[in-house]
Amino acid sequence: MPRGKTAPRTRPKASPVCPKIRVAVCGAAGFTGFELLRILLAHPKAEVTLATSEQDAGKSVSESHPVLRGRTDLRLEHLDLLQQTSRADVFFLALPNGQAMQMAPQLLAAGKKVIDLGADFRIRDLALFRKFYGNHSSPELVRKAVYGLCELHRPRIVQASLVANPGCYATSAILALAPLLEAGVIEGDGITVFAASGVSGAGRRTGDDKSFVAVNEGFHAYNPVTHRHRPEIEQELEAALGKSVHLSFIPHLLPLTRGILATISARSASKSGAAAATEVLEKAYRHSPFIRLRVLETTSPNVLDVQGTNFCDLGVIEDRSSGRLLIFSALDNLIKGASGQAVQNMNLMCGLDETTGLL
Amino acid sequence: MPRGKTAPRTRPKASPVCPKIRVAVCGAAGFTGFELLRILLAHPKAEVTLATSEQDAGKSVSESHPVLRGRTDLRLEHLDLLQQTSRADVFFLALPNGQAMQMAPQLLAAGKKVIDLGADFRIRDLALFRKFYGNHSSPELVRKAVYGLCELHRPRIVQASLVANPGCYATSAILALAPLLEAGVIEGDGITVFAASGVSGAGRRTGDDKSFVAVNEGFHAYNPVTHRHRPEIEQELEAALGKSVHLSFIPHLLPLTRGILATISARSASKSGAAAATEVLEKAYRHSPFIRLRVLETTSPNVLDVQGTNFCDLGVIEDRSSGRLLIFSALDNLIKGASGQAVQNMNLMCGLDETTGLL
Amino acid sequence: MPRGKTAPRTRPKASPVCPKIRVAVCGAAGFTGFELLRILLAHPKAEVTLATSEQDAGKSVSESHPVLRGRTDLRLEHLDLLQQTSRADVFFLALPNGQAMQMAPQLLAAGKKVIDLGADFRIRDLALFRKFYGNHSSPELVRKAVYGLCELHRPRIVQASLVANPGCYATSAILALAPLLEAGVIEGDGITVFAASGVSGAGRRTGDDKSFVAVNEGFHAYNPVTHRHRPEIEQELEAALGKSVHLSFIPHLLPLTRGILATISARSASKSGAAAATEVLEKAYRHSPFIRLRVLETTSPNVLDVQGTNFCDLGVIEDRSSGRLLIFSALDNLIKGASGQAVQNMNLMCGLDETTGLL
Amino acid sequence: MPRGKTAPRTRPKASPVCPKIRVAVCGAAGFTGFELLRILLAHPKAEVTLATSEQDAGKSVSESHPVLRGRTDLRLEHLDLLQQTSRADVFFLALPNGQAMQMAPQLLAAGKKVIDLGADFRIRDLALFRKFYGNHSSPELVRKAVYGLCELHRPRIVQASLVANPGCYATSAILALAPLLEAGVIEGDGITVFAASGVSGAGRRTGDDKSFVAVNEGFHAYNPVTHRHRPEIEQELEAALGKSVHLSFIPHLLPLTRGILATISARSASKSGAAAATEVLEKAYRHSPFIRLRVLETTSPNVLDVQGTNFCDLGVIEDRSSGRLLIFSALDNLIKGASGQAVQNMNLMCGLDETTGLL
Repeated sequence: MPRGKTAPRTRPKASPVCPKIRVAVCGAAGFTGFELLRILLAHPKAEVTLATSEQDAGKSVSESHPVLRGRTDLRLEHLDLLQQTSRADVFFLALPNGQAMQMAPQLLAAGKKVIDLGADFRIRDLALFRKFYGNHSSPELVRKAVYGLCELHRPRIVQASLVANPGCYATSAILALAPLLEAGVIEGDGITVFAASGVSGAGRRTGDDKSFVAVNEGFHAYNPVTHRHRPEIEQELEAALGKSVHLSFIPHLLPLTRGILATISARSASKSGAAAATEVLEKAYRHSPFIRLRVLETTSPNVLDVQGTNFCDLGVIEDRSSGRLLIFSALDNLIKGASGQAVQNMNLMCGLDETTGLL
Repeated sequence: MPRGKTAPRTRPKASPVCPKIRVAVCGAAGFTGFELLRILLAHPKAEVTLATSEQDAGKSVSESHPVLRGRTDLRLEHLDLLQQTSRADVFFLALPNGQAMQMAPQLLAAGKKVIDLGADFRIRDLALFRKFYGNHSSPELVRKAVYGLCELHRPRIVQASLVANPGCYATSAILALAPLLEAGVIEGDGITVFAASGVSGAGRRTGDDKSFVAVNEGFHAYNPVTHRHRPEIEQELEAALGKSVHLSFIPHLLPLTRGILATISARSASKSGAAAATEVLEKAYRHSPFIRLRVLETTSPNVLDVQGTNFCDLGVIEDRSSGRLLIFSALDNLIKGASGQAVQNMNLMCGLDETTGLL
Repeated sequence: MPRGKTAPRTRPKASPVCPKIRVAVCGAAGFTGFELLRILLAHPKAEVTLATSEQDAGKSVSESHPVLRGRTDLRLEHLDLLQQTSRADVFFLALPNGQAMQMAPQLLAAGKKVIDLGADFRIRDLALFRKFYGNHSSPELVRKAVYGLCELHRPRIVQASLVANPGCYATSAILALAPLLEAGVIEGDGITVFAASGVSGAGRRTGDDKSFVAVNEGFHAYNPVTHRHRPEIEQELEAALGKSVHLSFIPHLLPLTRGILATISARSASKSGAAAATEVLEKAYRHSPFIRLRVLETTSPNVLDVQGTNFCDLGVIEDRSSGRLLIFSALDNLIKGASGQAVQNMNLMCGLDETTGLL
Repeated sequence: MPRGKTAPRTRPKASPVCPKIRVAVCGAAGFTGFELLRILLAHPKAEVTLATSEQDAGKSVSESHPVLRGRTDLRLEHLDLLQQTSRADVFFLALPNGQAMQMAPQLLAAGKKVIDLGADFRIRDLALFRKFYGNHSSPELVRKAVYGLCELHRPRIVQASLVANPGCYATSAILALAPLLEAGVIEGDGITVFAASGVSGAGRRTGDDKSFVAVNEGFHAYNPVTHRHRPEIEQELEAALGKSVHLSFIPHLLPLTRGILATISARSASKSGAAAATEVLEKAYRHSPFIRLRVLETTSPNVLDVQGTNFCDLGVIEDRSSGRLLIFSALDNLIKGASGQAVQNMNLMCGLDETTGLL
């Protein structure tokens, strides 16, 4: 049983004539860290040169994420920016809230691009930030940061050195609502967002309430009136509408690993129907390759159809019995809701085609 | 390895001094038929004397439902009321819509009690019925039928010979809303019911869209503005409120076998908060052993906590940001949402304790 | 909307003329404790008078197990046998290994019946016990204990005051193999047991490796050559065969909550085929109401068909290509593999019909 | 809310200086067809120029597979080789068994490369083929076809114009066993393969037995002594061993969408232990980038770690109690077990790096 000649076990390094972007993944042992590594290891224009994890430092990436065995020889390191700043051009920060605000000043001072997947730079109102997350140690950077919802803020992201990558629920709700509010087809009050997320949205290290037996075959709402993503959503919708927005945001836990569906009920403004709303979305997203509009008949977008992709599927239907529009938004919470969007932001910040490594 | 003396393989027959109620399950091969059999075979005061199925006629019950092997020797028969009317005292009809309306006259004429698990007798407005289900062949019986939501119509059910067992979604929504509307703590317009059901709600014989691969790890809404349960819910809420109710009803498909969670957003009337609403529910259901009120903090009732039971778990929370109340309602769609409630109805109709065979 | 008169919220107490057996569940917060409570609260001849839990002491049973709300007002207490021995007639011990051996002497001295759901009294060879579990503090009781596999040791269980309730994997394998070895239709060496269990088999408090995301959509073997249930199985099979048995036991983790399937490959002795083996099992279990023999054609018993029941489904097929018999055994690991069998043992020990409260 | 300039909605076409391989996917509506499209649409050296489906002809690919929306504008066509042969260089046939044998002669005569994902060309013994699949209409091509298990037959695949892509179970078992048999570390008789597969292994159009409710929370064996993959496995193992092999092959259905784990028990030859076996596998696969050897301690390879990848994870452990080796093999049945391996074959046949488009 003879066998052929050698094949490379890992992807080839970038050629010297077209150097790859050197990227660091800080907080590489969690779910978003994993997904960043998975995408970036296959990215044709990027090379992961640093991956850190406090709890798994010393382990290889493939010990921490067995699915990545055979794709990389990287080892996880302790985070030590004094030593590591020079080792990458772009830093992805997938860290517990509160850490990115301490690291960003040094990285930016060294001319690095920073994409924070946590909440540190998402909320512009510092008083509101404090209420949900505590004090901010770099308030001046909050103003400098660009909210990294690519489809809405592309021109500013292209220029940005610090991007606040949106939360997963926030991405699903804002993509569905911002253009409709801006165009005046729905009203800004009386919006209810029923959202349901797979378990990976809660992060990798969690307690008994995320055990298999506690979740499997179950379904329930959690933090129905106090979820941290609500102010983030309201901030962006207010920017779109130009006045204050109050919404009801009710998250639920789905017995599946990945995916978010937001089912949104909003009052139709001036008798605009589903057709008008769909037209607004089509126009708003006609240059956005990751937004897919669905014509709705009997079923909404399904999280199955976005799993493993950077797409967000949107659809609108009119509920004549209540005079409201229903808008549906589905995405993969770890990709378009986190790491895929972070890479999309990197692509924009580095002058690459927005879809590079993501299709 | 000697072994002990014989043990009976099936439950003992009723003693002559206290004869059991003889019950027929018509349509015993489906999911609700199965659940009726499972409950009734263990019911201390009932004996299943007839089980029918057109497609599985000739098979034993345990061939059709292997989980029931060792618990019954019954065989499934073709339905033939001319021959079978005398064989039972109570007839459960778990048949495709349209069949019960043809059988009920004969059964009632013979003095039998009839519990229809389909939709034939649920809608009192015949024009509305026609719109969703087609013509009705026994319109005079629609008036005679009692809507079998035990907690709301107990005194009438006790007297009834024909009961229309409520739909699963309808049960969850009406139990949550009727007392609140009747007491005036929520308003009748602007109610949104976001509901999610396990797959067994769709019945046993279904197409590719209920295949494992099409459902597993997925989540989506279906029939978001046209579901047949909406008129049923509105009818009962209008009876509670005394005037017309329009609601938005948005069902979703969960990747699990059994359970419904209804998450309901309703406008609070005259600044009534969650405490007032909870008090109303407590008072309304203080004699209803299958309603469990939950004090809500961070999580809603969970379908896991009602699976396999006849309970409906309710909870209310106030969303101050929107001035609305959120009401949650969880039940097992095959038990409190179908077969368990049907047996609860039988218990009431036959003078038994409401909980017999159901705890 | 008038409502009827009161219905009792919990089951009625035993009447004085036929007092119920008073039972204690020690270790009531875990999965087996929950399942004991679920079964015993509905048992017509038993009354739970004590439930203990170290970590949840002070909580009500229904706080610890929300599915039991509305069925009991019991509170969990700290275990304190000095105070509690008089409060029950039968003690179920669902405790970490090592605790039952310390409590049993006092309980037996007080004339109580003890059913241990842990491993303390399962292994008769103290040296072997020590190797897997450590020192034994009550070695004299090991001899006194009866191995509580009801179908094989019924006459001894009827007389017993101390029963070692079998492990879940062990129950599935021994029920399949013991009669076949005893009758000589399979050989004692070369048996391979490929077993797969749902996640609840690992108990309620577990680490990251039982998180939803780590288990969902996954399948793997664990402890493939060192599982603690192997010596327990070998001990019982050696008793059946009359000489030593060595088997290969390979457990796997299934992405589901409950159920075990053991797929067993054994060398056929003296050209005995599936028919002969089936006949042996039929004869061995003809008085055992919880054993269901399946004629196999294209599929084996399915864990779906035993979930929520105390049944063990068995089937045999001949693999002519290898000259071996395949024996399949399916049960619910928390019921026939733990708490259901424990109640079956209680029934036998207390002179009740074996099936009481279990069908 | 200004937005940036256009981004392409689908991947760019091949540049003229380096034309892409034109590929056809015949039978594109099924699961393997979908997976072929998903991989090939992202393949840097291939372009899908034809996709056929009898039942979905006329639909767009993205209607048939909504997850592919936004990635292709292809439409599904009826298969009509007379018209279509010139439209591609490589034809993937993902068709019901029996169709490829009728199409292959014409395609090969036209100089096309053919990769059949069905069974038509897997079995070299025509009498054996007939027994499991019926008559063969192109027996002369059976000799010409190369069995496309890349890791074992790389040099011949490089030269081949007709490749029989292996079955999913067969791939998992043969990769685990062939090198060990060839090296003499295990014996050829007495091998037992316990295998478990996710539901997608059964194909897209299936009956009630693959409905969600019939599969969810279930586990059972099927066709335990008669599965069609057994002769395919035996054929390849006999080629490796040089003499006949008989094995016991027992497939099970897992309640998950994708993944196969084969747990294999084999008699160790001449006291070879796990270390010797691991060394043999390491040597055999040291140039095979998709084989990952795992050192086993307490858990085997997990299907979770190969899902969505073309990897096959292998591991060996010694069971001293039985004198046998346990070999574990995990892969994604739709990728390494079908479409990924088919693309790996294409890469080899077309002179590309074996991993192109697959990492």
